[in-house]
Amino acid sequence: MINELKRAEKILQRINDLASVSEDEGCITRTYGTPAFIEGRNKAEQWMKEAGLQTRIDNIGNVRGRLISENANAKTFVIASHIDTIINAGKFDGPLGVTMGLDLIEELIRAKTKLAFHIELIGFCDEEGCRFHTTYPGSKAVAGSFDNSILDAKDEAGISLQQVIEMNGGDVNKLGKDAIAKQDWLGYFEIHIEQGPVLYERKIPVAIVSGIAGQYRAGIVFNGEAGHAGTVPMDMRKDALACAAEFIIETERIALANKENIVATIGKTHIINAASNVIPGEVICSLDLRSADEKKLAAVYEEIKTKAENICTKRNIVPEWNLIQQHKPVTCDKAMISLMERSVKDAGYEVVKLVSGAGHDAVPVSEVAPVVMLFVKCFKGISHNPAENVEAEDIAAAIKVSDNFIQQLIKHKGH
Amino acid sequence: MINELKRAEKILQRINDLASVSEDEGCITRTYGTPAFIEGRNKAEQWMKEAGLQTRIDNIGNVRGRLISENANAKTFVIASHIDTIINAGKFDGPLGVTMGLDLIEELIRAKTKLAFHIELIGFCDEEGCRFHTTYPGSKAVAGSFDNSILDAKDEAGISLQQVIEMNGGDVNKLGKDAIAKQDWLGYFEIHIEQGPVLYERKIPVAIVSGIAGQYRAGIVFNGEAGHAGTVPMDMRKDALACAAEFIIETERIALANKENIVATIGKTHIINAASNVIPGEVICSLDLRSADEKKLAAVYEEIKTKAENICTKRNIVPEWNLIQQHKPVTCDKAMISLMERSVKDAGYEVVKLVSGAGHDAVPVSEVAPVVMLFVKCFKGISHNPAENVEAEDIAAAIKVSDNFIQQLIKHKGH
Repeated sequence: MINELKRAEKILQRINDLASVSEDEGCITRTYGTPAFIEGRNKAEQWMKEAGLQTRIDNIGNVRGRLISENANAKTFVIASHIDTIINAGKFDGPLGVTMGLDLIEELIRAKTKLAFHIELIGFCDEEGCRFHTTYPGSKAVAGSFDNSILDAKDEAGISLQQVIEMNGGDVNKLGKDAIAKQDWLGYFEIHIEQGPVLYERKIPVAIVSGIAGQYRAGIVFNGEAGHAGTVPMDMRKDALACAAEFIIETERIALANKENIVATIGKTHIINAASNVIPGEVICSLDLRSADEKKLAAVYEEIKTKAENICTKRNIVPEWNLIQQHKPVTCDKAMISLMERSVKDAGYEVVKLVSGAGHDAVPVSEVAPVVMLFVKCFKGISHNPAENVEAEDIAAAIKVSDNFIQQLIKHKGH
Repeated sequence: MINELKRAEKILQRINDLASVSEDEGCITRTYGTPAFIEGRNKAEQWMKEAGLQTRIDNIGNVRGRLISENANAKTFVIASHIDTIINAGKFDGPLGVTMGLDLIEELIRAKTKLAFHIELIGFCDEEGCRFHTTYPGSKAVAGSFDNSILDAKDEAGISLQQVIEMNGGDVNKLGKDAIAKQDWLGYFEIHIEQGPVLYERKIPVAIVSGIAGQYRAGIVFNGEAGHAGTVPMDMRKDALACAAEFIIETERIALANKENIVATIGKTHIINAASNVIPGEVICSLDLRSADEKKLAAVYEEIKTKAENICTKRNIVPEWNLIQQHKPVTCDKAMISLMERSVKDAGYEVVKLVSGAGHDAVPVSEVAPVVMLFVKCFKGISHNPAENVEAEDIAAAIKVSDNFIQQLIKHKGH
């Protein structure tokens, strides 16, 4: 473990180095296409070059470094995560996977490992989608599913995605050429912090991601009747907030009854014209429902919707239900998961499988390649927050598992 | 009833006339001390003068008109309501009582009724307290309980209450002299729209107000733990909104179990840093609890508070409970209520007694005089809203009852 801990320390140095590059002082912000993003990405490219990879920046702005196999017909195995961050981010979300991927490849180079496949390390340019409210444009470009219609999307300053690509030296007419053709993919591997508390609570360093949850996002308006808090008797009220509260409690109850598969969150509850002495007349709630089980997700969504309607009928409240977004779950590749299970066991850790409730670049890639992900324990499950933290010994554990995984891959996919 | 309907039409004309005076066009806004307020109040004074009353504007800004008894030692019976409004008000809240009081006195003058007591009609200047967030300064001045410490209160433009009094010709050193001494009060009578739906639902034109509810106002902070909507399993959450929702439902349940005596309202629920994909970490709720039964009010308040604590303990949420305001209930005068009951019966209506959940100028006056109020049915219970409406025939019914009441008063208190 001493060797892995040394490698972990170097990874942490690189993560800290990236964290020092930010749009704003005193925090970590590297949203897509900004000068700070470019500086961080160039740092990653420099590290790749020093490791001996063939690097390039593709048209959308991903940084890519290849370790070439001598086999002329070799497929490509991609190891990736992202360089961009949210506003006021933690330092591990994204950079952990890129720097750990680089370390794995450096280890292969050190060991002079012969490869029957190419390895490509990618630092994706826009996983968070903060600037243009887009969904995985960087990994979609690599997966060949980039949709040119989003090029017109504008950021808050009115600059379009196309302008940003061009300002940074990209050519929007060549985005399609950056894709790895479906037949050329061997697989995809991403290391990422868990962003949840399960490993922290269970004191286990890593988990295999069995799938990425599908999601329904809905907005619900509860139309009741506003009234004076002092003058309307309790049994004559149409209190939109009390109705929303019952909806919130019932949603929680239904999700808890399906807690192995489902998470449901009401993150927003807004009372129109709220005042402490006015019975709420109109309340708007958000609903975020996620599951890796497509059937269960659809069934629970319908159960919650029906429950909401029944609550409204009982309370004389008129609901408006709006489905805002719907994503199917992604299932990670069974063969890859099987290799990863062996790798975790061989490293001496308990095999834990988790569904990723958060989305990742693996989502678009899963359309063209077998994907697998490894989660690393993070402090209290805190993420998207400057308090985000990962311990060196957990990184060392993830190195051990990932080294095993690459060796398993070489063994099964040829060398 | 034909005569009463004619009088009701004249009252409605005056109400419409007052409604045409507003700070802003297209709505009714006459907050205390503004040019629109002054114009409306001067209109009322002009009507009083034309009726033959001895009028004056007192120092705080109430308009007052006296019908003098020949009895040198006579006490004063006050009929009153208010001239000021909230922002974007209905036209009946306040003006109904002032214009109906004037009509009652005009009727006494027409009939050349001999009085053993003075009658004073007052249009209070600031019942709503919108401008300085004060509580009944106009009626407190008349009741002798005006607190000079509020003179420093400032409105949104930074103008103090004292400045407004002085700009409008008042003298803050003479506020005390405007009070009617405790021994000089015969009683107090206010006609007001119900501002609630009970009479509308029961199709009854008027109700006797048996008391004015006491009130507790509290603010409750629920401290949970924010987290990613996708990554924190249901059973590892400390969702501050789900906790608040349970509190809202339980508060409603407790209030419904005491619905004869209690109204409880959560009018505000604010999630700190709300986002649809974030588990709410901190939620602030308001609580407004009212009852005419002082003991019941205190007991239910404690029951709700204890329930909130238990919910928080169960959910691992840390509550902060802040009592913001506490008013005792006011009981209307038994003898006056008895005279009013006779008056309602004699007019041919069912006797309905209601607790006023809203506060009124009768609250400070009740400290020095026997008070009684008459509620008039309002459309769907809608008030503090431009849609506020009262039918002419309900005003006519209220005239009949009020005429009877004044006659009962003359009969029992001398003439």
